[in-house]
Order: sequence, then C-alpha cells, then structure tokens
Amino acid sequence: MKTNFSKFDEQMMRRCFALARRGRFKVRPNPMVGAVLVKDGRVIGEGYHRYFGGPHAEVEAFQNATEDPAGATLYCNLEPCCHTNKKTPPCTPLVISKKVARVVVANIDPNPDVSGKGLQQMREAGIQVEAGLLAEEGAELNTVFFLNMKAQRPFVTLKIARSLDGFISKTKGKQTWLTSEKAVRFVHRLRATHQAVLVGAGTIEADDPQLTVRKARGPQPYRLILDGQLRVSLSASVFNDRFKEQTIVLTSTVAAPQKIEQLMQSGVQVLQFAGRNGRLALNEVLTALWQKQKIASLLVEGGQQIFTDFLNDRLFDELILIEAPVLLGNGLPAFERLTRQFLQLKEIKHLGPDVALIYHKKEK
Amino acid sequence: MKTNFSKFDEQMMRRCFALARRGRFKVRPNPMVGAVLVKDGRVIGEGYHRYFGGPHAEVEAFQNATEDPAGATLYCNLEPCCHTNKKTPPCTPLVISKKVARVVVANIDPNPDVSGKGLQQMREAGIQVEAGLLAEEGAELNTVFFLNMKAQRPFVTLKIARSLDGFISKTKGKQTWLTSEKAVRFVHRLRATHQAVLVGAGTIEADDPQLTVRKARGPQPYRLILDGQLRVSLSASVFNDRFKEQTIVLTSTVAAPQKIEQLMQSGVQVLQFAGRNGRLALNEVLTALWQKQKIASLLVEGGQQIFTDFLNDRLFDELILIEAPVLLGNGLPAFERLTRQFLQLKEIKHLGPDVALIYHKKEK
Repeated sequence: MKTNFSKFDEQMMRRCFALARRGRFKVRPNPMVGAVLVKDGRVIGEGYHRYFGGPHAEVEAFQNATEDPAGATLYCNLEPCCHTNKKTPPCTPLVISKKVARVVVANIDPNPDVSGKGLQQMREAGIQVEAGLLAEEGAELNTVFFLNMKAQRPFVTLKIARSLDGFISKTKGKQTWLTSEKAVRFVHRLRATHQAVLVGAGTIEADDPQLTVRKARGPQPYRLILDGQLRVSLSASVFNDRFKEQTIVLTSTVAAPQKIEQLMQSGVQVLQFAGRNGRLALNEVLTALWQKQKIASLLVEGGQQIFTDFLNDRLFDELILIEAPVLLGNGLPAFERLTRQFLQLKEIKHLGPDVALIYHKKEK
Repeated sequence: MKTNFSKFDEQMMRRCFALARRGRFKVRPNPMVGAVLVKDGRVIGEGYHRYFGGPHAEVEAFQNATEDPAGATLYCNLEPCCHTNKKTPPCTPLVISKKVARVVVANIDPNPDVSGKGLQQMREAGIQVEAGLLAEEGAELNTVFFLNMKAQRPFVTLKIARSLDGFISKTKGKQTWLTSEKAVRFVHRLRATHQAVLVGAGTIEADDPQLTVRKARGPQPYRLILDGQLRVSLSASVFNDRFKEQTIVLTSTVAAPQKIEQLMQSGVQVLQFAGRNGRLALNEVLTALWQKQKIASLLVEGGQQIFTDFLNDRLFDELILIEAPVLLGNGLPAFERLTRQFLQLKEIKHLGPDVALIYHKKEK
C-alpha cells in the first residue's frame, strides 16, 4: 500500500497536521484532522475538524474550495470516514461525488467501523488512493485517539510529584508543597491537555485541591473523584466552586444514597459502579468513562493508593515523575505494594529547579 | 580589581583554559593551569602544568617562548604561586625577572599560602596586574581544587543507580543490575575523572565489584573500602587483581591486626582511624584522605549506609542519581534514616534508557 511520496506530498501532509492541531481541545474525543485540496500543484481548499459534532475536515476543505475539485488530490491525515452511526454524515460519498482523482492519507482510521473501508470505497469508485504518508507523525498527533480505539478506554497519564527520596508528602493526610512554580504551570498545562483529572478521596481530604487550570491556557477538565465508600466531605472545593458541574464522583453501591442525592442536587455528577466491598474495579471505571462519558484522556493526580492501583493494573499509558530537589528523609511514599514492571523513557523536561521524567508503559 | 578586558584578552584566557585541560588526570591534586605569553598582539609562548610535580604553566610558557618576553603580557588562569613549601620553586620571582609588563589571571589562587600575595609581589615589582577575567569559567575548570582549598577535604560525588521507586537492589546483600550499558560507561567515566572511588564493606560482600575503568578512557582511581570492622573477605577482587596496590582499606582500631597484616602483605594499603565502636567518623577520614593521601576527588558508589552517612554529614558536593526505567516494587532503598535537606539541580544527562540527574549540595 505504501508508495513513493514526493516532497510536495510531504509538505501537504504536514499542512494537514498543522490544520488538524487547530482543533486541539475542541474536537475531543474525536481525532484531530486536517485536509488540503490540491489541483495542478496549487492549494485550492483547506479545512479542519473544528469542534466535536462539527463538520469533518474534508467537508470543510470542499466548502472552502476556490475551484472545482474535480481531478484534484485530497490530502487528509486520517482516512475519510464511511460509517453512519455518528453525528455527521460519512465523508467518502462526498469525496467520490466531488470527483477527486487522488486521495492521500497518513493513517488508516483505527475505528473498527472504518479501518480501511473508507479507502476501499474510494478505490472502488476509481480514485487513486494512497496511505501511509508520514504515518508515524500522524499517529503521534492522535496518540490519544489511537489508544482510545485500541484499548476502548481513556488515555491515562499518571503524574507524580515527589521528593528525590520518593515521598509525595511529609505525612499522610497532609499536603506538602514540593515543586516549583514552573512545575505547577506544567501540571496546569497537563490538566488542560487532558479531558479529565482524577484523584482519590484521600487527596481531596488531605489537600482539598481545586484541580483547575489557573496557571495555563486551556479548558477546564472534568474532575473525577474516585471514592468507592463516598467518604469525602461535601464541603470540598470541587463540589462547591464554579466548576462543580464538571465534577464527577465515581463511587460504588455501598455509598450512602442520601449523600449521593445531596451531591447531585448541588450539580455534581455521580457514577455508581458495582465495586467489591466499596472498592471499584479500575478497568470497569475506565471503560465506562470512555464509552459513556466520552472521556478520551485522563490525568491521574494521586494519591498513593490510586497511583499504585493504576500501575499494578497496568491501566496507564504515561507516567510523569516530577522530581523536586529535596530529600525529605521520611513521609508518604508514592507507591505501596507495587508489582515489578518496566517502563520506557520518552522525554525529560527541565522545570526550573525540578525535573519531569516522562515514561511510557512498556508493552510486554 | 576587575578591569575592562578586551575580546583579545578573553581569547587568550580561553586559550589558557584549553591548555590547562591538557593536564587533566595528570596534575591532580594540583589545579589545571595554562599560560600564554603575548607580545605586540602575537603569541610568543604557551605552556601548561603537565603533571603533578612537574614545572608550572608559567615556567613552561617562558621556556617555550620564541622571543624575549620583556614587555609581554602573561595570561594565566590561576595566580602565579609565591610560596615555597612545595615541589617546585615559586613562579612570581621568575615572572618578575622576565620583565613582563602585564599579568592577567582568571582566578586568585585559593591556596591560603598564595591567595593574592603572588599578585601583590608582581604589582610591587611594577607589573600591571589584572585579575578576574572569565573568573567563573576558571573556577568551574578547577572546581575540585577550589573545594579542596576551601573545605580541606576531597571533592565528593555520590553516585546512586536506582529503580524509579528508589531501590538500589532487589534484596540486601545481592547485586541487581539496573542500568544500561550507556549508564555503565558513564559510571566508568566518572571513575576515571575522580582520583578515588569508595564503597562500603557491604557492597564488596554483595557485588564483589572490580571498581575499574574498563569502559572508558582514563586512569584507574584508588579504590577505597570503608570497613570499620574489617569484615570484608580477603578474596574480594579489589584485593587480588592487578590494581590491588591502588586499593586502600579504611578501618578502625577494632580491626583484627592479623587481617590488616595479611592485606598489607598482599600490597593493599590500610589506613586505621580511631573510630567509635568500629564506626569511622567520615569527616576525619576525608580530612586524612586529602591531607595525607592527597586525594582530591572521591566518587562514592555505595551502599545504603554509606550514601546515608555522607548525606547526613553533608560531606558531599554532588549527588548523581541514575534512574533506571523500572519499578521494582520492593528491595533495598538507597537511603535509610535520612535527614531532610535541599539540593540544587545542576545537569541532566540522557543515558539511553536511563537518566542521570546531577545535583549540587545546596549551601544553607
């Protein structure tokens, strides 16, 4: 399927990536997609998927076309869709009807409803179809979407700020401010780039965090409170501030119905899972978050039990360790009863006096 | 004292630094020094301190001069010496006798026997003397020497290779291979750049390490075994290989005299300290290593007790954490009963799959 692409082809695909990125934050849980129409070596139309529920990139490109696209080449980073069980009409009939001569894509749509069928339909209509141009960059652009499709759960990032001797706070139940202003801004950027943040009840009790995006630009993520027993106080910030309607409590069937009622009345959402003695099964929770809430990405911010559970269940994609330049001597370790596992270094970020080490889960 | 130096002055001082570096490994515990003679804008002589006990940089520069240095400028990264309690004659009388017109140095010699007196002598002889040109770079070049002079002990680097959850091995008393080939080469380079490496008896027992420079270029450092009780086995590699005469056992008065005798007979050196119940006072050990053994720099390689003691006594200058991309779950932590302290990030090194985080001690 892979063909020899020209430098010009690559340029056009990079343009698709750049267009696609404009939809960042707004299209999720959809992938970011850009499209470029080229005729006789000239760009005659461009478009991108602008917001969730809005027209697809190809549709935008045709709408913006300054000439008849008949005979043109359509560049698009993701395979045009052909399925109908969604908000917008499928794109392949449109592409075919516009009589384009050639379609070039970076990635085949991993959505099992598409997955090559879109390309096949266009090929059968006589269009010259080529896939795989800058496929790696395309996959990188939509890492979250590809993971969603493959794992049917949100992309999970664990973020752990700790001392050099591995403690996340001086004492259990009390917050310790370890990291610098630069690290805090980095965490706020992480929040903005994830569709939801998650903490356990212990973190709410110890820190009463706001979990908002105050020191970065970007949308406020959902705030998920994992609390099988529903032991958190109703006076916690996340239940009372102006974003309380974006707070979702994840609890089990042992939770007191009256407390659930109170939370819901104040605008907080509550999701109940079967659980086991008030302890939730993370895989069940994550599947529901993806399939029912359409949460594509999740930043897990603590505490110890939560970090350990996500790691031991291997329900994570990235682990970000923010190392503060202090040796505490003692305190609450980041993990407890961890199972051995290997990771893969992805990136190192300097955050002033702190360092962020970013790891991938290593597939076995 | 600081004057306005020209670009040319800076160029010449950088040349001094480059010349000085050629003496790396060979001049220690002396500082690295380079000297350049310039007359009418032309370099007429260069020199550097080539080996411990050998002629000083200034002497070399005069010897290599292609013209009469009368009226020339002498550039030298360190103040010319004026003291006589050492291997070579003082340099200031020579500089004065050569009738140079100007002397420019980066740093004043921190050696209390010199410390500005050399400059003063030359000034009194009518030479135009300027100090402070690229002083920071000069101090960086001779970090170890400056620390030796200030603290009267070796420059101490703690090197800890550990898992992401902070373990240096899976179980006490057994070696765990955590880091990559690249990290191993980095450690061997560290060994070569330090005049001695140090481990505790526990590390000898658990790992029987060679502590040699096999995967880097550079000299074999002294191997110091800190063993107050003298419990190590005489069959350990460090007592039997071809570098055994560079092995020094640091022990206390509780050590069995017969065992000391056996070690010394096989060519191993033994230093005995008073200690307290077989436990050595690190500050005493370090002072002796500097003052009696002329060991200018020390790489501390473990284990847990040794790392903790050096940190708690604040007897270190750099802490290098090599983080391997694995979560072990349990094992031997790098530290035990550590006192709280703050550090300062100096540098981050990518070592393939591993990362080295290099910290400075933070002065209170």
